[in-house]
Amino acid sequence: MATLKNDLLLKALRSEKVDRPPVWMMRQAGRYLPDYIKLKEKFSFFERVQTPELATAITIQPVEQIGVDAAIIFSDILVVPQAMGLEVQLIENKGPILPDPIKSKEDLKRIHIPDVNEKLKYVFDALAMTKKELNGRVPLIGFAGAPWTLLCYMVEGKGSKTFDAAKAFCYTQPELAHQLLQMVTDTTIQYVKQQVKSGADVIQIFDSWGGLLGPDDFENLSLQYIRQIVDALNDEKALNIIFAKGAWHSLEAMAETGTNGLGLDWCISPQLARKFAGNRVTLQGNMDPAKLLSPIPVLKNEVKKMLDGFGSQRYIANLGHGITPNVPVDHARAFVDTVKNYQPSPSVAFN
Amino acid sequence: MATLKNDLLLKALRSEKVDRPPVWMMRQAGRYLPDYIKLKEKFSFFERVQTPELATAITIQPVEQIGVDAAIIFSDILVVPQAMGLEVQLIENKGPILPDPIKSKEDLKRIHIPDVNEKLKYVFDALAMTKKELNGRVPLIGFAGAPWTLLCYMVEGKGSKTFDAAKAFCYTQPELAHQLLQMVTDTTIQYVKQQVKSGADVIQIFDSWGGLLGPDDFENLSLQYIRQIVDALNDEKALNIIFAKGAWHSLEAMAETGTNGLGLDWCISPQLARKFAGNRVTLQGNMDPAKLLSPIPVLKNEVKKMLDGFGSQRYIANLGHGITPNVPVDHARAFVDTVKNYQPSPSVAFN
Repeated sequence: MATLKNDLLLKALRSEKVDRPPVWMMRQAGRYLPDYIKLKEKFSFFERVQTPELATAITIQPVEQIGVDAAIIFSDILVVPQAMGLEVQLIENKGPILPDPIKSKEDLKRIHIPDVNEKLKYVFDALAMTKKELNGRVPLIGFAGAPWTLLCYMVEGKGSKTFDAAKAFCYTQPELAHQLLQMVTDTTIQYVKQQVKSGADVIQIFDSWGGLLGPDDFENLSLQYIRQIVDALNDEKALNIIFAKGAWHSLEAMAETGTNGLGLDWCISPQLARKFAGNRVTLQGNMDPAKLLSPIPVLKNEVKKMLDGFGSQRYIANLGHGITPNVPVDHARAFVDTVKNYQPSPSVAFN
Repeated sequence: MATLKNDLLLKALRSEKVDRPPVWMMRQAGRYLPDYIKLKEKFSFFERVQTPELATAITIQPVEQIGVDAAIIFSDILVVPQAMGLEVQLIENKGPILPDPIKSKEDLKRIHIPDVNEKLKYVFDALAMTKKELNGRVPLIGFAGAPWTLLCYMVEGKGSKTFDAAKAFCYTQPELAHQLLQMVTDTTIQYVKQQVKSGADVIQIFDSWGGLLGPDDFENLSLQYIRQIVDALNDEKALNIIFAKGAWHSLEAMAETGTNGLGLDWCISPQLARKFAGNRVTLQGNMDPAKLLSPIPVLKNEVKKMLDGFGSQRYIANLGHGITPNVPVDHARAFVDTVKNYQPSPSVAFN
């Protein structure tokens, strides 16, 4: 393995001193990049995800074209339900459809805990190929969906604002829900461990729908399963980040899992996030991706305000959610460049 | 005017002592009630909203059939953009469509601040008729959308998870956005004042999409306009409630407007909500409407837990968002009855 030339992300996650915060953007691989759009016109979503050469090329594009401090493997959280035996369709610009969702005990028999080395080999191959191709330029991030977020899709069968069917499933058939969550968790633990073996330097757990749950339900339906995944990664000394969008109320509980980093959406001030999360954990985020559409001078000021708020240590500059397809490339670059050129205001205290 | 026989809601909002908390449910009029569904099959959405006899009948149904402590007029927040000159279509079970949304300075010329007495007379007539029909049984709530939430629809042209087009409009054309927000605010102030004159005892401001904004943007794009509406209502000594879903970070700022009540979604504990909001304001909420689908014994326990958390004073029992169409009527009734029969646990301190 080539030695890492830029290990800012790893240092920040290990709470080591850095000269400036690392920067990357959720969904940086894909969506808004013209070279990605060209590949999208030629290959279907699952062709892009399942062909290591394509996934590698897409993963590396933002490293070379935008100058981010980390690569994140091009894939999708729904490869796990797919590997467990559920059909997943990804309709371009529309979102996922799972035509036969889980509704009953009977349905649960249709899925199983797979051998990830067989079913998800293409992800591990893509990670190994990307790692080689990166040749130590920047660290490589692998990821998985949180079990609760995967349950949302596996039960609802499609995207939703409120995932009422998924919630109704949990509230009316709690035993079944927990059985499903544990199956997803067991699969995910094998999956992320193998990602680390294949070259991922960091694993991020995406709980995109964690914020739909109140604090008690978040513990019961989401965090107790995330905790198992974090424990498994910590046992292997693999760096990890939890991003539970909207679950501000549980930042303290998430920090207590012993994870290295907590992702934040834009609906919390840096000061309050630090107060809730405590001083041990590294914070990551949190600019509203819609603000990337602002005129560049406005955008730069917003980035500086964010950096002043978080300070330069134990912090990873990022968005508060995935970058949207309508962001001009030079705006994405301005976001990244502003972090890289950041000089803290004299008034900012370093924590 | 008949004297109010049940003034629990008004007492709770005035911070007066009550024997038990009042209870009502957002979206209680419509959606899940069989008698409503019958009317829905005969009359279009706007026929139901614009015919005072129908709106009155729908408003009173949950008072008689579910036993709530307040009526809320059957209407829609989008009557305001409609009165301002924008076409609004409400597709049953699909949501609103505004086929010619506001995108530019030129578009802004298509709308105006209307004479509400002319354009929204049907709402005032419905309020007056409902008031008479209620004959003092329970108080009557009127409502309006917050200017930010109305801008979301007026610019995006339809519902959205993230309202990216609305945000892009605000971030790229801030002057235009503020001009639009002020026009909506001016219209809304006239509208809610006239609702009070027509019989509304309380006005609730719904900022359904307030939670899409970070704290600074919430102040800039939403709260500064809500504040004007609250000021106008306070000047008339009209009781009012702000419900900005997801805007937990600004509970303190919202309480400082001098509003009487703050609506809460289910993603905050009663204790933390009270801490953020301070001791002066009345809190309203906050059960996850999806929990109404739980088996009735589970549902009752959830309601009791909520009541133990909030205590019985300066509190209005409610959901954390509108009731969904799939809730069985006896579950809605169990929610309301549990509040009405509530005996606080001996360990619960009254604040």
